[in-house]
Amino acid sequence: MTYATHFDQNCVFCKIIHGDIPSFKIFEDDGVFAFMDINPIAPGHSLVIPKYHTPDLLSAPAETVSVTAAGIQRLAKAVQKTLRPDGLNILQANGPGAAQSVLHLHMHVVPRQMGDGLAMNWEMVPGDTQRIAQLAEEIKGNLD
Amino acid sequence: MTYATHFDQNCVFCKIIHGDIPSFKIFEDDGVFAFMDINPIAPGHSLVIPKYHTPDLLSAPAETVSVTAAGIQRLAKAVQKTLRPDGLNILQANGPGAAQSVLHLHMHVVPRQMGDGLAMNWEMVPGDTQRIAQLAEEIKGNLD
Repeated sequence: MTYATHFDQNCVFCKIIHGDIPSFKIFEDDGVFAFMDINPIAPGHSLVIPKYHTPDLLSAPAETVSVTAAGIQRLAKAVQKTLRPDGLNILQANGPGAAQSVLHLHMHVVPRQMGDGLAMNWEMVPGDTQRIAQLAEEIKGNLD
Repeated sequence: MTYATHFDQNCVFCKIIHGDIPSFKIFEDDGVFAFMDINPIAPGHSLVIPKYHTPDLLSAPAETVSVTAAGIQRLAKAVQKTLRPDGLNILQANGPGAAQSVLHLHMHVVPRQMGDGLAMNWEMVPGDTQRIAQLAEEIKGNLD
């Protein structure tokens, strides 16, 4: 199946999809692109974005919502298999009150540990890129 | 379109779908049931659950993921229109580390205010049921 794509040349995530900005890619298909968060709040923190540029969930075409949800499930399964965390959250932010950082729909996979005390918003602190690159390879190896 | 349904007679959310446990329903369709969280962490905090019983995102059939995502978008739009919060988070928990409370896939809509300091896990504190009932009616009135 081929999905509609739509790019915004000023969007950081569109540039990542196009390869104009490097990323630690985990997978891509016709509809989505999955990659590591470079400001991780937990090891394995990663993202799925649709190839159809749309600011958030509220604005997204139905097809884009569906394909992004399928992508986040595929990513979540591989992250779970790789890291065996105590839990996983799927988180998606809309608007400044939710601290949405990039105005291109994205869904986070956040591995959880008991008592990690994570908040729904967080500071952007760059992670160790070697460790992130290594985890990307490990997660790739566990994709269905 | 008709979606597969599957019920677990011991599941609290399946009982809510069946009407065996009362809820403040916002809408339902063939695939999902949307209702108010009775332990809200913000006014308008609400949930979408699929009519196909499955513990979490990792275990869900593809169709269930898709229909649940469509439902959460419909709910999020109506919550946004009703409460005009500064932002909205969509949150979904898998496993004890994510403090998943009911082992039936569910997605939260959490309205956000700037600086509300919400955490990714929270204590269950019952809300004011009159206020919750009123909000359910208001959100219903804003459904597309």
